[in-house]
Amino acid sequence: MSKRILVVGGVAGGASVAARARRIDEAAEVIMFDRGPHVSFSNCSLPFHLSGIVQNSDDLVMMSPEKFKKQYNIEARVNSEVTKIKREEKKIVVKNLITGEEYEEPYDKLVLSPGASAILPKSIEEITRPNVFTVRNVVDIKKLHDYIVVYNIEDVAVVGGGFIGVEAAENLRLAGKNVSLIEAFDQIMAPFDYDMAQILQKEMIDKGVNLIIGDGLKKINEDSLELQSGKKVAAKVVVMAIGVSPETRLAREAGLEIGVTGGIKVDHNYLTNDKDIYAVGDAIEVYNRLTHKPSRLALAGPAQRQARAAADNMYNIPHNNKGVIGSSVVHVFDLGAASTGLNEKTAKAAGISYDFVYIIPGDKVGLMPDSCPMHFKLIYEYPTGRILGAQAIGKGNVDKRIDVIATMITMGGTLEDLKELELCYAPLFSTAKDVVNHAALVGLNLLYGRFKQVPVTKVRELVENDEFIVDVREKDEYAEGHLKNAINIPLSEIRQRLDEIPKDEPVYLHCRSSQRSYNAVMALQNLGYNNIINISGSYLGICCYEYYQDQVSGREKIVTEYNFK
Amino acid sequence: MSKRILVVGGVAGGASVAARARRIDEAAEVIMFDRGPHVSFSNCSLPFHLSGIVQNSDDLVMMSPEKFKKQYNIEARVNSEVTKIKREEKKIVVKNLITGEEYEEPYDKLVLSPGASAILPKSIEEITRPNVFTVRNVVDIKKLHDYIVVYNIEDVAVVGGGFIGVEAAENLRLAGKNVSLIEAFDQIMAPFDYDMAQILQKEMIDKGVNLIIGDGLKKINEDSLELQSGKKVAAKVVVMAIGVSPETRLAREAGLEIGVTGGIKVDHNYLTNDKDIYAVGDAIEVYNRLTHKPSRLALAGPAQRQARAAADNMYNIPHNNKGVIGSSVVHVFDLGAASTGLNEKTAKAAGISYDFVYIIPGDKVGLMPDSCPMHFKLIYEYPTGRILGAQAIGKGNVDKRIDVIATMITMGGTLEDLKELELCYAPLFSTAKDVVNHAALVGLNLLYGRFKQVPVTKVRELVENDEFIVDVREKDEYAEGHLKNAINIPLSEIRQRLDEIPKDEPVYLHCRSSQRSYNAVMALQNLGYNNIINISGSYLGICCYEYYQDQVSGREKIVTEYNFK
Repeated sequence: MSKRILVVGGVAGGASVAARARRIDEAAEVIMFDRGPHVSFSNCSLPFHLSGIVQNSDDLVMMSPEKFKKQYNIEARVNSEVTKIKREEKKIVVKNLITGEEYEEPYDKLVLSPGASAILPKSIEEITRPNVFTVRNVVDIKKLHDYIVVYNIEDVAVVGGGFIGVEAAENLRLAGKNVSLIEAFDQIMAPFDYDMAQILQKEMIDKGVNLIIGDGLKKINEDSLELQSGKKVAAKVVVMAIGVSPETRLAREAGLEIGVTGGIKVDHNYLTNDKDIYAVGDAIEVYNRLTHKPSRLALAGPAQRQARAAADNMYNIPHNNKGVIGSSVVHVFDLGAASTGLNEKTAKAAGISYDFVYIIPGDKVGLMPDSCPMHFKLIYEYPTGRILGAQAIGKGNVDKRIDVIATMITMGGTLEDLKELELCYAPLFSTAKDVVNHAALVGLNLLYGRFKQVPVTKVRELVENDEFIVDVREKDEYAEGHLKNAINIPLSEIRQRLDEIPKDEPVYLHCRSSQRSYNAVMALQNLGYNNIINISGSYLGICCYEYYQDQVSGREKIVTEYNFK
Repeated sequence: MSKRILVVGGVAGGASVAARARRIDEAAEVIMFDRGPHVSFSNCSLPFHLSGIVQNSDDLVMMSPEKFKKQYNIEARVNSEVTKIKREEKKIVVKNLITGEEYEEPYDKLVLSPGASAILPKSIEEITRPNVFTVRNVVDIKKLHDYIVVYNIEDVAVVGGGFIGVEAAENLRLAGKNVSLIEAFDQIMAPFDYDMAQILQKEMIDKGVNLIIGDGLKKINEDSLELQSGKKVAAKVVVMAIGVSPETRLAREAGLEIGVTGGIKVDHNYLTNDKDIYAVGDAIEVYNRLTHKPSRLALAGPAQRQARAAADNMYNIPHNNKGVIGSSVVHVFDLGAASTGLNEKTAKAAGISYDFVYIIPGDKVGLMPDSCPMHFKLIYEYPTGRILGAQAIGKGNVDKRIDVIATMITMGGTLEDLKELELCYAPLFSTAKDVVNHAALVGLNLLYGRFKQVPVTKVRELVENDEFIVDVREKDEYAEGHLKNAINIPLSEIRQRLDEIPKDEPVYLHCRSSQRSYNAVMALQNLGYNNIINISGSYLGICCYEYYQDQVSGREKIVTEYNFK
């Protein structure tokens, strides 16, 4: 007898599990239910409707129920909310949201792919006002877009500096709006460490976004917001993007197990504690292969893999479950920002022993017209050198470098492996020693104890403590901007001016991007200096790190002039 | 006592070994010799001077001898040809090409990094004419560029369709010249298989290059070339780029061992058969880790790694020698073309059992304005599924996909590993199931025998033999162009029109890019059809494969209209 497969939720996970089941079994009866009017829309493309990059919101819908039926013989019932699972009877209760009718459907296998919903804390006053929007589906984005157009809105506030908040803010700004982005945490974009986030924050303010960090939303008015600090922000529209919460009501009420992270608990096969009920996508709890702990991860790629694995399991086709590492990328105006695996914060939280490299090499050969610096941070396990994660920010091909690192992590690679990677090179695409090779070389030097480094986050302290800092750039570079108490001994003069460098105290070296200072460090160490420390990131990194905080706090700069080139 | 390290050749390999030695040992005496007037120039950037992307040829020189001295305390002697190695005395003989003076220099360690020179066969009549140029160094490119400018040349012929030939042709075309590219072999760009090369050849002719394949150069005249076929080609300047030959004279005369491939033979540590003489770069023979055979590889990345390893070995620092896989990328007008590892030709030649996948997915979400098809070919070992190589061609991020595959190859990854890779996804960067994941899924379906495929190279035969071909695209797509004897049964109608599909003979299915035909194949097989074959690459692949040959041969098309979208 043919299998009856019911799927709750018709977006990434749900649609994928249905299509995969159909490919395996032409005879199966497959029905998807979604409480919204659409199935299979491009969730991740929603913010692009705000700028007009996606002009017509209808284009966001990839497949209609009619097309599902004709192409895949899959029934997609929209405006159909599944209100209850009767596990003993193997039935679900469905409510037709148009007619109000309720009915039951029996299943052999049930798949839950309900996703996650935007968090709207009741503690925020007037959170239910009609000028408050979320960005979770096509209906949401159309409502938001049309409201802005109809009421000719200029002042918009986005609350929450994660992926959706940043993308919404960017696309609204591209549409010419006055955009405020409000983040309660001390930085935007949690996948990035505090140092790397400063670069993104700089880009935001450079592009005219009113960025407010470390302040929470208190109250929403008709044309302004009140923040916890008392500050007021002009806004006739508010986009709430402070986070999402897994849709677990249905599972919870059916007595399905919920994990410690609040997501639906699943086994290797994405089965819940009911052997006929699978769960996939944003609503579940996944296993992080780096921290060895359960976690949540609202990303489309893993959802698709989970969906395929669940369908395969229904037909006894084995699959791998490698857990997740969390790879992502986002556009922030002129910059791409990509990350994978652990960052310093998550490594620390997981109690994993790590060290890191921060380099700013060129993304391609300097002669090429669009060559740009790429900020690249690599996290590795100490003392094994196993690669744990990376973050890349720049105008160039950041996703390439991070995809290589994601591949290395999955394959259990170390710094030695990364150093040896033989990657594509041509001047328009990269450098002979690519960013990732370069990071591995620096990492190995640190791992093997060949030199010591101090991060950009500590430079202010060095300056304030009047430490001995040598800037080894050429004189003209120094003249254009330098650390306030750094002395200038160019690499090209250092061997002649050794008498100016003390042997009995710590000496901190930097240049523009650490390339020349590395050579200076090695030379001095060879000459018997035992307390030489390289400033990781060097002048470019220091400027990028300090800039945003200097702007917003009005504190004293530690550099004479910023230089971002 | 301090080491005396002499280096023959001051470009990629030579300069790297000198700089690395200096970092390890401040006390070493390091001297580089180059017979040209420059050291450390950007070899790979040379062709870009022809288009003006690099306007000033002086910019191609990265470091002057003065800068080497000041920054690294390395002596770089230019216009200095090393004419002899006196191994017993551990001395080299150097000729100053300006003064004619000859002198000797003793060494503790000698490094040979002489590179490779352009092949100029004497069998070509008048090969020594003054209008014949090569592209190996800054002097070459400046001479070529200035000749074209001074004599106001319009007609240029490039002989040889490898990296340098293609880049020279492209940059000359970008400068507005009438460019002919002549390749004696049956395709340009040997790292690509014949099917993939057709796409590059199409791009060449689309951009106005007079591309001549399968014809060799016979004679050079003042304003034309004569080819083996008797064809004449207008050309007042000829760029010879048919290949390079390793510079082994010095090594050979010194009795150093030369490998079977004609390159200098080296051991794990890049030592020749003399324990004090290293060799690195284009002049050496390397070990291919996929074929397990010696080979030659004139690429900058491996040269740099060899240089570092050689310097490390002088100081007893151990290093990995993973052999090479050969990763490269090239720009061909609007397309990027990247490859790594083995292709069908090299796998066959090495006697390695393989199968392959050819897919043409979108490089990013279809809604995004610059989304484009990417032609992607993945080669894997049969029956193990171990990844052996890949080729990617498209307007999008080809180098990203190939770098991921290169990483997988180095780490010994299989199709199962590739399928599970968790890569960065956002609509502007990729798709939730990236090109490489997609290729792995198709590969696993083939490996596990879930369906059969026929390559685009066989479709003409199918059409000529009047095989039963079903085009499962929608009617309007079919109307815009289709295979001459394919019948049209859209995927959306196939379940209702099963009676039109014979059960007792082979049925070939295709759509636009194989996505829909894959679903149709699975459905039909499920319904008891046992001889269903998917056409890999589908209509888009067929058009790209057939187009160039159709144009040049004037043979009958097998499609009613080409469609490249």
